[in-house]
Amino acid sequence: MAVGGRRVTIATIAEAAGVSVPTVSRVLNGRTDVSPETRDRIEHLLREHDYRPRNSRQPLRAGLIDLVFHDLDSPWAVELIRGVEEVTHAAGVGTVISAVHRRTASTRQWLQNLRARQSDGVILVISDGAGPVSTELHRLNVPMVIIDPAGGTAADVPTIGATNWSGGRSATEHLIAKGHRRIGLVEGPKNLLCSRARLDGYRAALEEAGLRVDKRLIEPGDFRHEGGFTAAERLLDRDDPPTAIFASSDQMALGVYEAARRRGLRVPDDLSVVGFDDLPEARWSSPPLTTVRQPLADMGGLAARTVLRMSRGEPIETPRVELATELVVRESTALLAEARRQTTQ
Amino acid sequence: MAVGGRRVTIATIAEAAGVSVPTVSRVLNGRTDVSPETRDRIEHLLREHDYRPRNSRQPLRAGLIDLVFHDLDSPWAVELIRGVEEVTHAAGVGTVISAVHRRTASTRQWLQNLRARQSDGVILVISDGAGPVSTELHRLNVPMVIIDPAGGTAADVPTIGATNWSGGRSATEHLIAKGHRRIGLVEGPKNLLCSRARLDGYRAALEEAGLRVDKRLIEPGDFRHEGGFTAAERLLDRDDPPTAIFASSDQMALGVYEAARRRGLRVPDDLSVVGFDDLPEARWSSPPLTTVRQPLADMGGLAARTVLRMSRGEPIETPRVELATELVVRESTALLAEARRQTTQ
Repeated sequence: MAVGGRRVTIATIAEAAGVSVPTVSRVLNGRTDVSPETRDRIEHLLREHDYRPRNSRQPLRAGLIDLVFHDLDSPWAVELIRGVEEVTHAAGVGTVISAVHRRTASTRQWLQNLRARQSDGVILVISDGAGPVSTELHRLNVPMVIIDPAGGTAADVPTIGATNWSGGRSATEHLIAKGHRRIGLVEGPKNLLCSRARLDGYRAALEEAGLRVDKRLIEPGDFRHEGGFTAAERLLDRDDPPTAIFASSDQMALGVYEAARRRGLRVPDDLSVVGFDDLPEARWSSPPLTTVRQPLADMGGLAARTVLRMSRGEPIETPRVELATELVVRESTALLAEARRQTTQ
Repeated sequence: MAVGGRRVTIATIAEAAGVSVPTVSRVLNGRTDVSPETRDRIEHLLREHDYRPRNSRQPLRAGLIDLVFHDLDSPWAVELIRGVEEVTHAAGVGTVISAVHRRTASTRQWLQNLRARQSDGVILVISDGAGPVSTELHRLNVPMVIIDPAGGTAADVPTIGATNWSGGRSATEHLIAKGHRRIGLVEGPKNLLCSRARLDGYRAALEEAGLRVDKRLIEPGDFRHEGGFTAAERLLDRDDPPTAIFASSDQMALGVYEAARRRGLRVPDDLSVVGFDDLPEARWSSPPLTTVRQPLADMGGLAARTVLRMSRGEPIETPRVELATELVVRESTALLAEARRQTTQ
């Protein structure tokens, strides 16, 4: 905040940049009528001098944090929003929701708005596209936390996730304990760390049980209903189809249900299914879905507390957090038919 | 903005209220260190003089609108959020999401934050508790739109809903056309206009077909899974259970599915089910749910456009809008067994 004990003002920055005070104001207010070169120079100086427009100019305005998704099209999003909102509401801070739709133009527009509304911090749930956005936020000196990161996050950006590897492992162990040996996997998007961790947990459980990992039983997916449906169609079309499928999201598990139903296969009698997330709808699917619970609302709440601490300049305890997952056994998994016959013999 | 052609300033208001300029500023900035009486007097004068703090004081700050729910616990919420966000994002305005949890303290805190962040407008989705909140927003001179109102909304507050009566009617007509005569209804919360309209649509269809409305086939519900489950248990426990159930939300329809499944009843062979909403999960339930589509994202988008127009002081075209609903026939409804037998004889 200070250089040589003196408070940094807009005038200090304007002088150092060789521009007028209104030009610096325009940059601070996110106006577009400043040339990119001038903007860069001024932003560089603002960062260098650790100028904080919020505290110095508008000490009384209520705080805001931004929560950014790719798309707002899943009950998964509402769980995170709920967790974030509970914390920010209690802190008297508003939560601004944005969807950037994987489009560069949309992201640019959002960054411009973020700058103009002088957000206190950002929670990104747009892991796979976080690279350029996080670089830009860094440049703007806005505190940032990433939920469910892709690989390669900058070391000083806190990330929050769940114990995806353990979750994938316990889902698969559960199916093995039910006598299943041919267990299909529907993966999440390959570029996400959480997808890779769930896959590796699946592999670890098979290997610990002395079972071979059959690559033909691993199908790509996208966390959405359609992806689970298509993957299950491919798996069930095989000459030697799996007797159980672990779908690495609840929505994909419901897609698997639908593929089974269309073939006249009953869940769990003919096909066992495990999901991942434990969205509210998992409990109310037919039959109720066995799934790995990840504490989405808690993850959102922790992300909010972390970004609020950062916005106040307080230290954060640990930059990498994984909250525990837990297997919730409901009615979509059953003993393998052969195992059942052996038990009753 | 003007009295006798002169622009209204903070000083004008301070003079009229007999207080200092900083006191008026404190009220405008949502500070709490002003006595309630003084605040009331100043707010009254601000309204009377149509003082607009945003435009006069902070012409460059990016806009914000508030979207307020009771609870963020339903995929229904995310559909509305998506529709609102698309419009505000394009307008360069941020969407602040809040949940007030039907608690007075929480609502008070939210109103204080709203005032402090100088929101440009509010979309309320908290229909049943909108009374006191809308009075307060009126007092603060904040533009407001209500989605799915309860009865008794002030005439000058725009409301946005769907054609719930037509939707309830077409759902019931569809079941009658399939040969059903004993059709159960699971209602929504009784205090909501949308629930009453769906009920009346159900009644209208029965009466048009010359069928008696049997009150014992109408069960209360709450739009949630559990409510649908409990209501269906009561309906199916009857000596003369219905052969079809119209649940006035998709989540309640999935609760009906679960009640049927636990009794070994197959949907649609033994029980036809129709929902209301067409949430994404309706398409992916087992079997895919026949339901009345209400255009939630469009309703959110229209609410956002309306409140943005109001915040710019532009006229709105009509204060009461109902967007069209549409029956989407999937696989949860079938010809009544007797009707089927007659057809094949």
